[in-house]
Amino acid sequence: MLSLNVNLGDRSYPILIGNGLLGQPDILDPHLAADDVLVVTNEVVGPIYLEPLKGLLGDRRVETIVLPDGEAHKTMETMRTILDRLVENRFGRDCMLITLGGGVVGDIGGFAAAVYQRGVDFVQVPTTLLAQVDAAVGGKTGVNHPGGKNLIGAFHQPRCVLIDTDCLKTLPDRELSAGLAEVVKYGLIADAELFGWLEQHADDLLSKDPAALHHAIRRSCEIKAGIVAEDEREHGRRALLNLGHTYGHAIEHCAGYGEWLHGEAVAAGICMAADFAGRLGALRPEEIQRIRELVERLRLPTDPPAVNPQDFLAAMSMDKKVVGGQIRLVMLTGIGAAEVTANYPSHELVDMLREQFIH
Amino acid sequence: MLSLNVNLGDRSYPILIGNGLLGQPDILDPHLAADDVLVVTNEVVGPIYLEPLKGLLGDRRVETIVLPDGEAHKTMETMRTILDRLVENRFGRDCMLITLGGGVVGDIGGFAAAVYQRGVDFVQVPTTLLAQVDAAVGGKTGVNHPGGKNLIGAFHQPRCVLIDTDCLKTLPDRELSAGLAEVVKYGLIADAELFGWLEQHADDLLSKDPAALHHAIRRSCEIKAGIVAEDEREHGRRALLNLGHTYGHAIEHCAGYGEWLHGEAVAAGICMAADFAGRLGALRPEEIQRIRELVERLRLPTDPPAVNPQDFLAAMSMDKKVVGGQIRLVMLTGIGAAEVTANYPSHELVDMLREQFIH
Repeated sequence: MLSLNVNLGDRSYPILIGNGLLGQPDILDPHLAADDVLVVTNEVVGPIYLEPLKGLLGDRRVETIVLPDGEAHKTMETMRTILDRLVENRFGRDCMLITLGGGVVGDIGGFAAAVYQRGVDFVQVPTTLLAQVDAAVGGKTGVNHPGGKNLIGAFHQPRCVLIDTDCLKTLPDRELSAGLAEVVKYGLIADAELFGWLEQHADDLLSKDPAALHHAIRRSCEIKAGIVAEDEREHGRRALLNLGHTYGHAIEHCAGYGEWLHGEAVAAGICMAADFAGRLGALRPEEIQRIRELVERLRLPTDPPAVNPQDFLAAMSMDKKVVGGQIRLVMLTGIGAAEVTANYPSHELVDMLREQFIH
Repeated sequence: MLSLNVNLGDRSYPILIGNGLLGQPDILDPHLAADDVLVVTNEVVGPIYLEPLKGLLGDRRVETIVLPDGEAHKTMETMRTILDRLVENRFGRDCMLITLGGGVVGDIGGFAAAVYQRGVDFVQVPTTLLAQVDAAVGGKTGVNHPGGKNLIGAFHQPRCVLIDTDCLKTLPDRELSAGLAEVVKYGLIADAELFGWLEQHADDLLSKDPAALHHAIRRSCEIKAGIVAEDEREHGRRALLNLGHTYGHAIEHCAGYGEWLHGEAVAAGICMAADFAGRLGALRPEEIQRIRELVERLRLPTDPPAVNPQDFLAAMSMDKKVVGGQIRLVMLTGIGAAEVTANYPSHELVDMLREQFIH
C-alpha cells in the first residue's frame, strides 16, 4: 500500500492507494474517531461494496443512505435527503460521513459533511477511476444548480482518501475511459513524461492492467496533492486543474446533466482548449494532433455535441472561472505546460465556437 | 467611529461602530472589492435602510433580495431563493453579498455567501441590537432544520461588520430587550464589571440612551472578538458563548420558530442555566437572584414556556453541543465566570426540567 500526504497544516490527510484495501479491517481506524457513521453511496456501488466497507467499521453505529445514480441527481434536493437522515438519526457534531462511490457521491456527501452542524468529518472511498484520480482529492464539494455545474458547494477536506484499486474491476469501460480524461489533464498541465507514458500505455489502461492503473492513479494523486497543498482555495495555480473544465461544464450543462459523463465532457473540453491555444499560437499543430490522438485512443470524444454557440458561451460564462466579466481559461503552452489567463481576444473564442459547432 | 479588529490571520476584519455610519459614502470602500453586489434584507428593514445603504455602494451594480421577516423563514428554502437570484444575475465568484437586517438575515445571507461558488465575500450590516452585539460577529452562518435550530450552516467570516447605532432608533422595544439578553450573557461568562454596569444602566438601555447602547455594543463586540480570535471553530472556549443557548434553542424549537424571539429564549435559558448551576452548588442563591432580577428588569422572560419535559430534553439533545451522547452545558461558576462541561449527573438535568415545567 502506498500512502501520499496532502499537506494542509492541521487539515492534512493521507491518500491510501492499493489493492485489497477494503479487505483490511483496521485500515480506517486511525482516521475514524467517530462512533456514529453515515455511509453515503448509490444504487450501483452500494450492492457491491457496502458490505466490504462495513467490515472496516467495527462495532460503530453505521447508518446508510443509498442515492440514485448519476449527475442528474447531484442537486440540493439530494443533499437535503442526507441532512434529513443525519437529523433523523440524531447524529451529533462528532459523527462522520463516508462517501462510497464516484465523483457525484463524493461531491454531494462531502458537501453534506461541510454544512451539517457547520461541518463534520468525512472520509472519501472513491470507486471510479475519475473519483480516484481527481474528484476525491482536494476538498472540492458541491452540487449543481439548474443554472450551472457545481455552483453551490464548499471547500471541505476529507480526513482520509481510501483508494482500493480492486474496485476498478467492476467499472464499466465507458467510465474507465472517462476517468482517463483527468489523467490526460495532469500530463498536459504538469508532466510531459506522464503524457508520453499515457501514449505508450493506453492499451494497458483500457484493458485494466493493474500496474498501469496503479501508476496512473499514483501520478495523478501526487500531482493533485502538490497543487492543492500550494493553493487550497484556488486563488492561483490550482486553477490549472480546470483545463478543459470550463468547456466541459458547458457541454454537460447544454447536453443535460448525465447525458455526457463528466470525464467525456472534459476530454472534448481539453481538445477545445488545445484548439484554442493553437489558434492563438500558443500550441503547435503537431502538439494538438498528439492530444487529439491520445484522447481518441482512450475512446473519448474529441468534439463537443451540436449546440447553439450562444448557449454554449452563456454556459461557459456562468462557470466559476469568470472574473470581471472575462472568462479565465487554462491556456496550454506545450505538452506539460499551461497557464491561467483572461488575456486573449474575446472574438477569437466566439469565432472558434462558431466554427466548432458548424462542422 | 470605533473600529475593533477580529484577529483571524488572513480572515481578519474590522467591526465599525458608530452613529450615522450609513450616511458616510466612503465607509465601505476599503472592504468592498466587488463590482457586483447583492444586498440581502427583509420586508421590515429594507424599506427603511436600503436606500441609505445603496448610498454607500457608488456606481457598483446592485441587486436586492427582500426576504420575509422572522425566524420561521430561516430555512434552506429561503436560502435557495438567494442562490437563485445570484445565478439569475450571473454573479461571478468575485461578487459580494451585504446582509442588511437582524440575525436571521445575517445568518441566511452569510450562509448563501459561504456556499455560492464555494464561497464569496460578504459584509454584515446588522440593524437589530441582537445582531449588533452577537449574530453579525464571528462567522457563524446557517439555517434551521425542522429537526433543530441552526443545524445546517458554515463558518464563514465577513470582510467587515458595519454597526450604525442609529438603526436602533427604529427598533421595537421587544427586540431591544431581546438583544440585551446577549449582553447579559457576555457579562455572565466573562465580565463581572459589565454585569454590574448593566444592573446600573438597565433603564438607560431600555430608553435607548445612545451612550449606554454604545457602551453595551462595544463591550459585547470586544468580548466576542477576543473569544472568536482565540477559538474560531468552537473547539474550546468559544462554546462559552452558548450560555443559555442549548436551553434557548430548545425553547425556540418547542414553541415553534418565531413565537419566541431568539433573545427571549436565551434570557429564559440563562435563568435555567443559573438554576442548574445553583442545583449543583456552582452558583450561590443570591447570584441566581441577581441574574433573574436583571433579566426581569430588562423585560425579558425568566422561565420557559409550558412544554413536555421529554420533548424539551429531546430538543436539547439535538442541539450541536452534544458530544458522545451527553449534552455539554455552559456551567456558571460565578457572575463573570463559566466553564463548559459534560461532567454532571444526568438525572439532575431531568429533575430540574420536570420541576420547571410543573410550576
